[in-house]
Amino acid sequence: MKISILTLFPQMFEGLFSHSILHQAQKKGIVEYNVMDFRNYSADKHGRVDDYPYGGGGGMVLTPQPLFDAVEQEKRESKSVPRVILLCPQGERYTQKKAEELAREESLILLCGHYEGYDERIREYLVTDEISIGDYVLTGGEIGAMVITDSVTRLLPGALGNESSAVTDSFSTGLLEYPHYTRPADFRGYKVPEILLSGHHAKIEAWRREQAVRRTWERRPDLLEHVPLSDKEKKMIEKWDEE
Amino acid sequence: MKISILTLFPQMFEGLFSHSILHQAQKKGIVEYNVMDFRNYSADKHGRVDDYPYGGGGGMVLTPQPLFDAVEQEKRESKSVPRVILLCPQGERYTQKKAEELAREESLILLCGHYEGYDERIREYLVTDEISIGDYVLTGGEIGAMVITDSVTRLLPGALGNESSAVTDSFSTGLLEYPHYTRPADFRGYKVPEILLSGHHAKIEAWRREQAVRRTWERRPDLLEHVPLSDKEKKMIEKWDEE
Repeated sequence: MKISILTLFPQMFEGLFSHSILHQAQKKGIVEYNVMDFRNYSADKHGRVDDYPYGGGGGMVLTPQPLFDAVEQEKRESKSVPRVILLCPQGERYTQKKAEELAREESLILLCGHYEGYDERIREYLVTDEISIGDYVLTGGEIGAMVITDSVTRLLPGALGNESSAVTDSFSTGLLEYPHYTRPADFRGYKVPEILLSGHHAKIEAWRREQAVRRTWERRPDLLEHVPLSDKEKKMIEKWDEE
Repeated sequence: MKISILTLFPQMFEGLFSHSILHQAQKKGIVEYNVMDFRNYSADKHGRVDDYPYGGGGGMVLTPQPLFDAVEQEKRESKSVPRVILLCPQGERYTQKKAEELAREESLILLCGHYEGYDERIREYLVTDEISIGDYVLTGGEIGAMVITDSVTRLLPGALGNESSAVTDSFSTGLLEYPHYTRPADFRGYKVPEILLSGHHAKIEAWRREQAVRRTWERRPDLLEHVPLSDKEKKMIEKWDEE
């Protein structure tokens, strides 16, 4: 897979790709990252990429020309037709399901804006997807591009060292994760639950499943609607609801 | 404000703080960032910070000792009691409202995990808040810490050059933003709406408000419940619903 990132702040991504899993994935040839400064595509002699908004108001708006030209250059260099993704608060909410969908693509182009916003024609005529990583405001699209890059890369076959990790993660089973414990069994008087030290694997599995259901019920009941539950679990939840 | 970030990958943050707005905010003395490698706090002679999970299963679990010691060191150096925030998928969903709440604190400590998970005692006895930036899986908590750092910093007085930007952003008015346009008025045959070139400020304002309501109705109708709408706007929405 090839992930191209168009940004005015390419140096923001240096740390991301120095980090173990993404760095390893690139080294293994599973993914190729290409961070481009789209200011280099500006036809303006001063390299301007933004201008005042028509109709007045504060802030600056990204002009269409540099992004259109940069994306078209990337498209010419791609073997397949890339998805062109705009990071913006108005976009579709990003989810693990979307990450799985994007991980099946051969190439992605991520557009990171800054300033007040994008010229609307970028939205209408250049991009295929608009994505928001959450209901909060960031100074630009770069951190959103990092979210997509990271979440998609770790789904690519061979990217994670331990294959089991991708399976038991939150959202992959539909439930939040059960509590984890490691050494020491007693830390400053805070103890690990007895059951985990018992060696009874079937009981441990049952305890973990119950904890995962319980935690999901407490914190994210909305997720339970999409999880297949046993009759016993359904009764357990009814009991919790009553209490 | 002081934001301390505890991570095993401090180099991931170098790019973030080289970037204009956060870099400027730190230079102006509005905020102090402190990125710490919590491996340095490990009492283990090989610097280990993780161990196998009790009860079996794949992946590694972060042990409590290094994080407890690192947080306690930070607390001793803080004038006020810092909020200790764990980034994890099981946490409370991060929103702009939470960003505003955190921006009123004097100090924040952000804990970024990696591997399979955190020892549950970290969650129970060390942290004050658990936050999730969205329903997707990332390789670690670092990008979540970036989201919090960026969204909180830009709310600090004086951090944004153009004060008007923080006010008209998406989520600040409760509506998604209206479409922006800038030069050229005609880009490859794609034209800017006539109204924006008209110079009629009142009409432009009315158009923008209607566009913002329309876009929110189309893309995020859930947000409309919390926005005060005029009778005319309510009728407009009823009409759209019927169509």
